[in-house]
Amino acid sequence: MKRIETWIVFTLLMVMRLQAQVLQEDGSVLFTYTHKEATKAVVVVDNTAYPMQKQDADMWEVCVQGLTPNLHTYLFYINDVPALDQRNPHRMRDVASTFNFFILPGGEADMYQAQDVPHGTVQQVWYPTLTQTQRRMSIYLPPSYGQGDRYYPVLYLLHGSGGDELAWLELGRTAEIMDNLIAAGKAKEMIVVMPNGNMYQEASPTYCAERTPWSDSKVRLQGTFEETFSDVISFVEKNYRTITKKHARAIAGLSMGGYHAMHISHYFNQMFDYVGLFSPTYSTIPIEERNMPGMKLSFPSERTTPRVYRNVEKDLERQFAAKPALYWIAIGTTDFLYQENVQYRAFLDSKGYPYTYYESQGGHSWDNWRHYLTLFVPQLFPHL
Amino acid sequence: MKRIETWIVFTLLMVMRLQAQVLQEDGSVLFTYTHKEATKAVVVVDNTAYPMQKQDADMWEVCVQGLTPNLHTYLFYINDVPALDQRNPHRMRDVASTFNFFILPGGEADMYQAQDVPHGTVQQVWYPTLTQTQRRMSIYLPPSYGQGDRYYPVLYLLHGSGGDELAWLELGRTAEIMDNLIAAGKAKEMIVVMPNGNMYQEASPTYCAERTPWSDSKVRLQGTFEETFSDVISFVEKNYRTITKKHARAIAGLSMGGYHAMHISHYFNQMFDYVGLFSPTYSTIPIEERNMPGMKLSFPSERTTPRVYRNVEKDLERQFAAKPALYWIAIGTTDFLYQENVQYRAFLDSKGYPYTYYESQGGHSWDNWRHYLTLFVPQLFPHL
Repeated sequence: MKRIETWIVFTLLMVMRLQAQVLQEDGSVLFTYTHKEATKAVVVVDNTAYPMQKQDADMWEVCVQGLTPNLHTYLFYINDVPALDQRNPHRMRDVASTFNFFILPGGEADMYQAQDVPHGTVQQVWYPTLTQTQRRMSIYLPPSYGQGDRYYPVLYLLHGSGGDELAWLELGRTAEIMDNLIAAGKAKEMIVVMPNGNMYQEASPTYCAERTPWSDSKVRLQGTFEETFSDVISFVEKNYRTITKKHARAIAGLSMGGYHAMHISHYFNQMFDYVGLFSPTYSTIPIEERNMPGMKLSFPSERTTPRVYRNVEKDLERQFAAKPALYWIAIGTTDFLYQENVQYRAFLDSKGYPYTYYESQGGHSWDNWRHYLTLFVPQLFPHL
Repeated sequence: MKRIETWIVFTLLMVMRLQAQVLQEDGSVLFTYTHKEATKAVVVVDNTAYPMQKQDADMWEVCVQGLTPNLHTYLFYINDVPALDQRNPHRMRDVASTFNFFILPGGEADMYQAQDVPHGTVQQVWYPTLTQTQRRMSIYLPPSYGQGDRYYPVLYLLHGSGGDELAWLELGRTAEIMDNLIAAGKAKEMIVVMPNGNMYQEASPTYCAERTPWSDSKVRLQGTFEETFSDVISFVEKNYRTITKKHARAIAGLSMGGYHAMHISHYFNQMFDYVGLFSPTYSTIPIEERNMPGMKLSFPSERTTPRVYRNVEKDLERQFAAKPALYWIAIGTTDFLYQENVQYRAFLDSKGYPYTYYESQGGHSWDNWRHYLTLFVPQLFPHL
């Protein structure tokens, strides 16, 4: 089993020399962990747990076979205590979980890694709102931005309920994916705007204290984010070189961000020509009630409902009457929101609203969302 | 012991409800950790270990008294396995260690927290170099940047050997400190440039794989970063609205970054009017040889030495002949580099070179470096 001679090996050899893992040519990775008093050690790679075997006095190890080219995450559990690889600085945070990662190169995985291509610029910028004084968003500016007189189309890209304005950058590898797609001629140069969709947060917890607990689900889906999304658009179109036309605006999101993208795009129904719903949920009624086979989605309409949720069917009618260039829905077959998506597609079919559907393996996870992004972005703005 | 009614309490109460800590009014914090099979639990707060007591079947707890207003870090050790607070998303990475943090408000600690003041913008941008194709740097643009025709002075701010272009932002709270100092009228609006000073890295490991192991100390201090620092300055002055004069340039750094700031500022000795050395090291000879009491620092001069280290004394003579507006040295009394700093000050004294010296408690740690930054920045560019 010869070592692969690529850059990735340096990362992994470095780590190996010190503590934790080795890459071998056939996609197998050796995980080791040293701890004197452990009686049980497990490594969770992606979502699969691998029990480790005790090798000597304090060294535990397991060789995981057949990992495919991709970004892989891992976390040790030493006597059931979640433990990072103390020697690998490559790590990501998802809500309150931090784990290590590495990229096995090849295929789409190469899109997730910074390559020697022109790079865009990433910004964190604060924008004023009516509901809170200021909120933070991340912005990706493409490589040629600022070097000439061009104006650019904009993709608004929304995170899930545990995320924040850094999630698409850190877990989603958006800057790397955009740089690499653009360099390969597979995507147009565009601005990507990643706001923070949790109204209880003004910014990521790396920056700000929350004013409300994130565990309080009542603060999540009150419609405020969707109804005030014009704040985000106004700020971006005022401060950046953007094409301020429907044919140059796209909106996409994952999970709760898919919910946001769906509701924002029907509420501002003449605004976006491209809509991407990645593993989305749709309705404001509890999941238990809407996720049963045979059930149809229903949208509330009471006067007490936030405005954005009050006229969903009418708004969708207006949105589809204006013929969006792309209405793209993607979900994995084992996603817990799969059934709800069957229902939403049945609803769209019943109305004769055209959409494009993409079904992948797997569930509600970042490896699907990175994959969906690499599929969605090349379909945007072909005329520009 | 009444709860403090400030925003911070929300963060901590949130956490408490789920798992890990409670704030009380007298600066005491209750740390708890739940684990079924633990036989030993410790929490390390800042750099002090507190053994936890078993409360019932699986709950461990310790109340830590007398914490002062500051940013405090903590990490649990459950049966000696380092463990994050799984319910607190507030965390920082330092080299390959990740830990939780919270801020006890009051005094200077309020500078470390985003407040309701005008915020600057943070960028990560790639710049071209002669030695590598591209490298990434972080840039802080002050609140008024881009809103008028102003040009700004620039502070170049350098991290230590385990850091990268995100270290001053994440661990150093630079954006928060700058926003708050500027809002309080204590600092001028300025651009802060935070490049990556480790030449084996093109960017932070959140973004890039390293091409060389960070543990290989030989790649650290080869002079390349210092000698090519003109790449950084050129890029910044070409692409941002900067005042391109000595009186509008400052350079500062911590630890290895202090070493870089010292060597860059004598090498480009007509370039910087303000120099800040935070817990710096100075010489290229091994620490063991230069850190003995009574020993003088010596700078190598052989032809094989990188150019930047070859004429240090001559360069310093030129630097001080041009009368820098501020040459500021800060170190903690228990820093392992303390003795070396005694020697460097003796050297400056022997030459009659003026400098300002600030001595703090404590050692080689981020709480000192955040503190030094809040002291250094108000001294910059008083005439602008």
